[in-house]
Amino acid sequence: MRNLNQDNITQAVIARFADTPDPRLKEIVTSLVQHLHAFAREVKLTEGEWFQGIDYLTRTGQMCDAKRQEFILLSDVLGLSMLTVAMNNDKPQGCTEATVFGPFYVEGAPHYELGDDVANGASGEPCVVRGTVRGIGGEPVAGATINVWQADDEGRYDVQRPGLQGSQGRGELTAAPDGSFHFRTIVAEAYPIPTDGPVGELLQATRRHPWRPAHLHFKIDAPGYETLITHVFRDGDQYLDSDAVFGVRQSLVADWTPLPDGSHALVYDFVLNPAR
Amino acid sequence: MRNLNQDNITQAVIARFADTPDPRLKEIVTSLVQHLHAFAREVKLTEGEWFQGIDYLTRTGQMCDAKRQEFILLSDVLGLSMLTVAMNNDKPQGCTEATVFGPFYVEGAPHYELGDDVANGASGEPCVVRGTVRGIGGEPVAGATINVWQADDEGRYDVQRPGLQGSQGRGELTAAPDGSFHFRTIVAEAYPIPTDGPVGELLQATRRHPWRPAHLHFKIDAPGYETLITHVFRDGDQYLDSDAVFGVRQSLVADWTPLPDGSHALVYDFVLNPAR
Repeated sequence: MRNLNQDNITQAVIARFADTPDPRLKEIVTSLVQHLHAFAREVKLTEGEWFQGIDYLTRTGQMCDAKRQEFILLSDVLGLSMLTVAMNNDKPQGCTEATVFGPFYVEGAPHYELGDDVANGASGEPCVVRGTVRGIGGEPVAGATINVWQADDEGRYDVQRPGLQGSQGRGELTAAPDGSFHFRTIVAEAYPIPTDGPVGELLQATRRHPWRPAHLHFKIDAPGYETLITHVFRDGDQYLDSDAVFGVRQSLVADWTPLPDGSHALVYDFVLNPAR
Repeated sequence: MRNLNQDNITQAVIARFADTPDPRLKEIVTSLVQHLHAFAREVKLTEGEWFQGIDYLTRTGQMCDAKRQEFILLSDVLGLSMLTVAMNNDKPQGCTEATVFGPFYVEGAPHYELGDDVANGASGEPCVVRGTVRGIGGEPVAGATINVWQADDEGRYDVQRPGLQGSQGRGELTAAPDGSFHFRTIVAEAYPIPTDGPVGELLQATRRHPWRPAHLHFKIDAPGYETLITHVFRDGDQYLDSDAVFGVRQSLVADWTPLPDGSHALVYDFVLNPAR
């Protein structure tokens, strides 16, 4: 296996993976090599561009820490995240649709009681959110674990505020025995994804805007049901049709209704798919 | 652009790059999105696998520092580096062939005079290396800048020895007016690429060996000529046909001749391509 050239190297590399014991890993690396090489051949990648790519990926990894996940953001703006969600969430009619996870989820968010204010000091117009968690047959999902997270009215998540101790606009709740939940928070606003890293460079160089339409993130877990990772989007937002991460589903768009006292109300019901 | 699914999302993402001003960048991102999505669709990437991929790339970036380039290593073991070299180095017959750059080059290596010992304390059997740098017409390339780097007899480059101050087995020389060069060093030995990071995990999981056949790295620069990045491999090495990074070219394999005094001699002449 000497003197490999651009015509025979791909098969030589794939052959080197022949003894991979896990058949799924073998399938994935084989496909990855084929598509990676096909990309390089199609554009006839130069050595300078290869170096730029190495540098870009390196800086993307080095931008990541406990509060920042630049590779998820890159996957998001390249549509890979939404493609993966779409392929893996072909749920029965009537279930709540899934969308992208995003880079701002944090494990171990504080637990709140129903009715509490998860904003916890985050700035924004007050809002009450309520709804139910049910199964596809209409049965209430008692005690479902609901994680919610959102940006404040300056478009920042708590983890984007250096020096902030504790969580803001982020919490875990437990649905009541009848599947209902309610909590206080602030109204979601449109915001730009972080542009101070490699993903921002890409958007800038390609003249793409970084905005996401206003949304609340939800992750809902309950025994016997598939975990639901989704958003609820705010109707009327100007970015609903050009979300920087391709995550909008019409069924996830809802009204944030203004109330006479200046606050808002959002009602949204979730329907979980049984575990497969 | 709501409700994107696995069939229409790729075109939607490509359309988002429509305003990219640099046509080459547009070509590259368009092709990248197509092949990245094709890969994910072909293997029907699960959400768990997507998370593993994000984590793998993140850790690969975080393994990199001034002395370690894990993304180059990953590109090397996936054959992308050698494919890129092969596509971009279609030189005229008679020129020295190029091969992979590798992750161990360091900018600003110490300058040595011809005849000096670039090993500088690295352990190994002594060896004298000599040759000439010429152009394709046979003309000597006076004053060519020759960078050489290599591992010691334990298979480590200087940058892999924590706490080592200064360079070992690494240096820059200037060819004489007649294009000739000679220097002392140690005999190259086969060695495993670093397996203590994400690339090592991949090789382990796919039952690939990490070995590279013994070689000296060269980077040769001279005004009016294309930079040559190559290796000289040691004839008889057991890994010449299974190099972990696919870099062996028969024309780059040479004899390390044993001498009566226990040292070795390597003679290798380089032929540069005119700048294009």
